[in-house]
Amino acid sequence: MKLVRRPKFTCALWALIFLGCSCATAQDPLPSWNDGPNKQAIEQFVNDVTSQGSPTFVPQDQRIATFDNDGTLWVEQPMYTQLAFALARVKALAPQHPVWKQQQPFKAVLDGDMKTLAASGEKGLIQLMLATHTGMTTADFETIVKDWIGTAQHPRFHRLYTACVYQPMLELLAYLRANGFKTYIVSGGGVEFMRPWGEQVYGVPPEQTIGSTIKTQFEMKNGGPVLMRLPDMDFVDDKAGKPVAINKFIGRRPIAAFGNSDGDQQMLEWTAAGTGKRFMLLVHHTDATREYAYDRQSAFGKLDKALDEAKARNWVVVDMKRDWKTIFPATAQGQ
Amino acid sequence: MKLVRRPKFTCALWALIFLGCSCATAQDPLPSWNDGPNKQAIEQFVNDVTSQGSPTFVPQDQRIATFDNDGTLWVEQPMYTQLAFALARVKALAPQHPVWKQQQPFKAVLDGDMKTLAASGEKGLIQLMLATHTGMTTADFETIVKDWIGTAQHPRFHRLYTACVYQPMLELLAYLRANGFKTYIVSGGGVEFMRPWGEQVYGVPPEQTIGSTIKTQFEMKNGGPVLMRLPDMDFVDDKAGKPVAINKFIGRRPIAAFGNSDGDQQMLEWTAAGTGKRFMLLVHHTDATREYAYDRQSAFGKLDKALDEAKARNWVVVDMKRDWKTIFPATAQGQ
Repeated sequence: MKLVRRPKFTCALWALIFLGCSCATAQDPLPSWNDGPNKQAIEQFVNDVTSQGSPTFVPQDQRIATFDNDGTLWVEQPMYTQLAFALARVKALAPQHPVWKQQQPFKAVLDGDMKTLAASGEKGLIQLMLATHTGMTTADFETIVKDWIGTAQHPRFHRLYTACVYQPMLELLAYLRANGFKTYIVSGGGVEFMRPWGEQVYGVPPEQTIGSTIKTQFEMKNGGPVLMRLPDMDFVDDKAGKPVAINKFIGRRPIAAFGNSDGDQQMLEWTAAGTGKRFMLLVHHTDATREYAYDRQSAFGKLDKALDEAKARNWVVVDMKRDWKTIFPATAQGQ
Repeated sequence: MKLVRRPKFTCALWALIFLGCSCATAQDPLPSWNDGPNKQAIEQFVNDVTSQGSPTFVPQDQRIATFDNDGTLWVEQPMYTQLAFALARVKALAPQHPVWKQQQPFKAVLDGDMKTLAASGEKGLIQLMLATHTGMTTADFETIVKDWIGTAQHPRFHRLYTACVYQPMLELLAYLRANGFKTYIVSGGGVEFMRPWGEQVYGVPPEQTIGSTIKTQFEMKNGGPVLMRLPDMDFVDDKAGKPVAINKFIGRRPIAAFGNSDGDQQMLEWTAAGTGKRFMLLVHHTDATREYAYDRQSAFGKLDKALDEAKARNWVVVDMKRDWKTIFPATAQGQ
């Protein structure tokens, strides 16, 4: 009998190795989430759409989940990270542009005059973006982003920006992927600012990273083709732009969407309007001690109308202070 | 001994089931391709980039292959299928637009006057597209496309357009996917004209289908959100637009690209300019008997400059007559 049993055990081992993924549910996939209705709601939804034979089952290719980035996956205070990058670029490029010393909004950046910079509004910010994010090839811009993101530190947490990502959300991304979801980033941030590091930090590959774009142009340079970044906005992937981009890039409606601000409201509405089981979640920043507390009055990541709609429609609103055991990864990502 | 052997056989079976994909190479994956240097070149490339430990090995996530659609994956004569769709839509919508009887290019379509239609040029064609492809929600347009593509037949081959796809290219798509490639369509055709049927016919899901786009707008209608198709071009995914779209949508450079016309030249150049092993292929339509023969003078799918470049740079040029054993699937797709 022993001889017969041993091969049977080996068979079970084979099955285990090749069906390994199904073992993932054996331990808590969301250890940084405190127990409570929000964690339960996430697990219930995943269970509902992945249970074969259930009326709420969703085939794997339709399990699309979209995540905002700033304030949903990583810190967006005291300013968007991409804005910190743009300010650093203004300073680095200033010697080549002496006129900036007299010209707003560049002067404000060089003088560290955040009040005047803020007063320059969206127009001023777009001026900064175009001046610092264009005029080079896509390959050169990627190098510039990688160099900066590899060393720049968050002013309060004194760690790389890529280490100021939310551990509970990293777990959520991994949990969804382990359950057959395709996870996308759909961010107002520039797509070519996120792609150089997004796969390593979030496990989201470039082709699943959607964001705002500036125009590029195919050109021959030194005998080879390049894509030049032109000083002209192509698309702003925010607010009503998010469903437009989701339709254009993915061509399927998400069944789950995750955001934290009014910029995500239409993405959640678009997701909610599909048939079958749906999941909409907003991260509410309520933890001034461990991170930041802000909503209706914030200059970055304003959460006002979307919060009212979430409450009215019973979308999940994460209370960061109450729901999250930890905020950042213990071992900093990419460090 | 027999008792011991039986479980061992079962083990082998488990291994076979779970390692099943690796068996695909046991039989010819390209049975519709005649033996010869072009078939060999395809197989050699796939072997080079998938051989672990080889200096030409490419990790799976970087195995991106992009395919043009019209003339590369399906018939584009006597006119682009999407143009045939637009003409059918003009006829269907004519009762609601009595003015079309006197207005070009609509009058030409209704009179069956192809000469006047052709003389209206690109401007006329865009007028037709915008008049027939916009003014409805994305969901309604999808239904219109599905209804038409499910019944309309090719005027010469008397089968569904989706059955006028090239069997050797279907095998090539499947062969690349079996070897860990992510296959994309990058077409000048409208993305929302291709997505409703592309997955069933080509095995390419919506999120890997890139094409020309018209602008859409997020609106609330009857209490729910919709995306309205606006009468305004967003992006033409042709010629120098293809590398731009590849960079925007995929964010990685393909290692293999497949086309058939000058509209694909820049996509192949962009692919060729990457480092490491690369594969560029043009389908040359040389078979007037089984399909069509055309190149430098054709109104649709003109192949002139790209053919010269392909010859100069040793890109693979498929001679349809010589290289393909069969042209269309024996059992029509979708019928």
